[in-house]
Amino acid sequence: MTSPHQYAEQNHARFLDELKTLIRIPSISTLPRHAADVLRAAEWLADDMRQVGFETTEIIKMPQARHPLVLGTWMGASEDAPTILIYCHYDVQPARLEDGWDSDPFEPVEREGKLFARGSTDSKVNVMTQLKAVESLLAADGKSPVNIKLLLEGEEESGSENIITFVNEHGDRLKADVCVLCDGGIVAPEQPSLIYGLRGIVTMELRVTGPARDLHSGHYGGNVHNPIQALAEIVAQLHNASGTVTIPGFYDNVTALSQDEREALSGIDPWYEADWKRVAGAPQPWGEAGFSLHERAGIRPTLEINGIYGGYTEAGFKTVLPARAMAKISCRLVANQSPDRVFELLRAHIARLTPPTVRTELARLDEGAPAVLIDRNSKAMQVARLAYEKNWGKPALAEFVGGSIPIASALQPLVRDMVFMGYTYKGGQAHGPNEHIILNNFPRGIRTAIDFLQQLGVRG
Amino acid sequence: MTSPHQYAEQNHARFLDELKTLIRIPSISTLPRHAADVLRAAEWLADDMRQVGFETTEIIKMPQARHPLVLGTWMGASEDAPTILIYCHYDVQPARLEDGWDSDPFEPVEREGKLFARGSTDSKVNVMTQLKAVESLLAADGKSPVNIKLLLEGEEESGSENIITFVNEHGDRLKADVCVLCDGGIVAPEQPSLIYGLRGIVTMELRVTGPARDLHSGHYGGNVHNPIQALAEIVAQLHNASGTVTIPGFYDNVTALSQDEREALSGIDPWYEADWKRVAGAPQPWGEAGFSLHERAGIRPTLEINGIYGGYTEAGFKTVLPARAMAKISCRLVANQSPDRVFELLRAHIARLTPPTVRTELARLDEGAPAVLIDRNSKAMQVARLAYEKNWGKPALAEFVGGSIPIASALQPLVRDMVFMGYTYKGGQAHGPNEHIILNNFPRGIRTAIDFLQQLGVRG
Repeated sequence: MTSPHQYAEQNHARFLDELKTLIRIPSISTLPRHAADVLRAAEWLADDMRQVGFETTEIIKMPQARHPLVLGTWMGASEDAPTILIYCHYDVQPARLEDGWDSDPFEPVEREGKLFARGSTDSKVNVMTQLKAVESLLAADGKSPVNIKLLLEGEEESGSENIITFVNEHGDRLKADVCVLCDGGIVAPEQPSLIYGLRGIVTMELRVTGPARDLHSGHYGGNVHNPIQALAEIVAQLHNASGTVTIPGFYDNVTALSQDEREALSGIDPWYEADWKRVAGAPQPWGEAGFSLHERAGIRPTLEINGIYGGYTEAGFKTVLPARAMAKISCRLVANQSPDRVFELLRAHIARLTPPTVRTELARLDEGAPAVLIDRNSKAMQVARLAYEKNWGKPALAEFVGGSIPIASALQPLVRDMVFMGYTYKGGQAHGPNEHIILNNFPRGIRTAIDFLQQLGVRG
Repeated sequence: MTSPHQYAEQNHARFLDELKTLIRIPSISTLPRHAADVLRAAEWLADDMRQVGFETTEIIKMPQARHPLVLGTWMGASEDAPTILIYCHYDVQPARLEDGWDSDPFEPVEREGKLFARGSTDSKVNVMTQLKAVESLLAADGKSPVNIKLLLEGEEESGSENIITFVNEHGDRLKADVCVLCDGGIVAPEQPSLIYGLRGIVTMELRVTGPARDLHSGHYGGNVHNPIQALAEIVAQLHNASGTVTIPGFYDNVTALSQDEREALSGIDPWYEADWKRVAGAPQPWGEAGFSLHERAGIRPTLEINGIYGGYTEAGFKTVLPARAMAKISCRLVANQSPDRVFELLRAHIARLTPPTVRTELARLDEGAPAVLIDRNSKAMQVARLAYEKNWGKPALAEFVGGSIPIASALQPLVRDMVFMGYTYKGGQAHGPNEHIILNNFPRGIRTAIDFLQQLGVRG
């Protein structure tokens, strides 16, 4: 008998060829001229899923969508086996050789243990890791220890709006015990990590109006409260000198992590700080005292000014005292904070900070999303930790991610447990030129995914 | 013998026709397709100056200029008579019927005692008032009691750069005892006013940089000092809560006006405040306590934010933590403040306010201009006051103007005394639709200009 691991090893050359074949299809979802390529990638994947042995394979195009979802199911596990929903996306960012690539972005090239191509790290290697793990299970054992729903998105790089609609309207089809979100990856090629939480978000626009019209700043400068100045004065009051958000009630529902949890989290600090220096590269770190850089952007809620505009901003100068100014503001939320409540708290705070010389309005720009907090003690998380540790030879570090993944918020209510398992690494230049993966981590990822699915199928 | 006043009265219908003829030439200096019209207006004026009796009449085109100056001189007064340099401009702002005009902007229409047309109030009525006053003197008396240099600009509405070059390079040709700056006008149709001062200006750009590149605000929000926030925090510290500029040394050279002068100035307050409500229309006035609205924007130096920009500012939202943000800043200056020194003071202040988490740079955008302060007790000012009082039947109110007029700064070193004598009024919709003048004030202005020139010629 061949084990799934043996099967994966024996078939590795073909798996890599298939990954390259998928990469060669430039499934750029944001460029309309590549719509046929995105569809071609979906059809290629659906074909492969049928060959792998999925019982149902469907290409689903939502009415408003430009590109389809692919959904495959294999529900032949024993009666009380759990059902696993796996999410990945098969669309990619645009790329042109002249953007700084050393080789054709859609012709994968192996060099120094890496595979360079657009869509390699983000996220076709994740798609193929999951698909080939399932193939290895079905081919070696004739069956999988768990039921599987594999959901592949074609619009992740262009907004993900339609998959959210699909999840909201057809949630029944996706119900599962465990959801594996397979996008992104681990902190470094030889250092696995597991995400415990994502921050939520609420986005707003603060508008300040003053005079009835744009004025000559010579004629009225000194007796009219300049809306740009008033906006700056309000914005400057939203944090205190130690970087804490001043909105009354903002931190009311924020649960402090236990000292044990924070200790466990601190393992990622050296990796996080090295990455911060390399990517952010600001003159000095900033933020709330008493929290590590990783904690400030992961477990703490924040308020960010994402844009500001008013008056004359082109080359040279114009002596205008403008009638209005505005700022785009977002709050990143942690567990137990509601987008609605935070918006109302900020609105009340802005109203209190508004002097009688101007008028302000805080408009909400979207529904926002609550934070996603993963149960670190769920069976799925324990199994994921063991799978990484077995295949990497070291424990997976705990990690919080400061960004928001709307599909995670949308899927969480449909499942009991959620895990984020990706097999790429942060240095893989996702969205940039010379995007790449570490070649060794493709088979290592497949082994990890096999171990994860097998162990989930073990009762108790 | 006909007196100049009688001549002006007898010829008024023709004077008005000539004003209308000049207005019908759409001398829009900012639109290249009207270049021939601007030249036609210059030629029409030069012709009229020759007919009026100017001894020399010249159309001067500076090498870089798009439109010419017109310079006429009459230097036949008695040996010790003073020389008067009169400045006006003959170019106009663009105008289209569909901008909200009730009639063709370049076909003057009389209605309810007003004359409506583009360029009527700004500033062709001032050009013709001066020109027809000189005609009345020369025609009635055969000579003028003072020497006259009449300088007409064709690029006032498109930057005035070339006239400044001309003044700097050919100042000798413009030297005079008294300069009459004839642009703008009086505070209300029946209320004359005289300008005592203009503020200077220095313009700058404050640039704040933080991270090495635009970052994802989810991933780094909380541990990177957002340059927009840092900019707002710096800008918010440039004024204290009572509207005073916080730059150390900023007010060092500012001379307080005497209580008498401020008392004299207060006459304009009701007019100024009514205009403020009508035009500025902010929810409430703002600014330095202890000063009237007119004083805050006239005799006090200020710091204004004329533009601000950073991050994402279009519709919707983008989760960016930008690498940079900037603000356009100007300081309005009063007598004894130097643009150079104020720039250096602000640069040092910004450096002190800059936290170690970001970098700042304060760039200067232009040379700036010092304030223009008029000697209120000069003979020219006394004569101007009497001329207004005689023709309007009430004393001219004292007025400070918050804006800067670069040509005034450039001409001041060439003359002993300067006066601002205009004959339009603030409600005349300069630059807007339905621009107009009060018809009666055209002949009244000519009489005032005649009186002014005659009295300047009286010895002692």
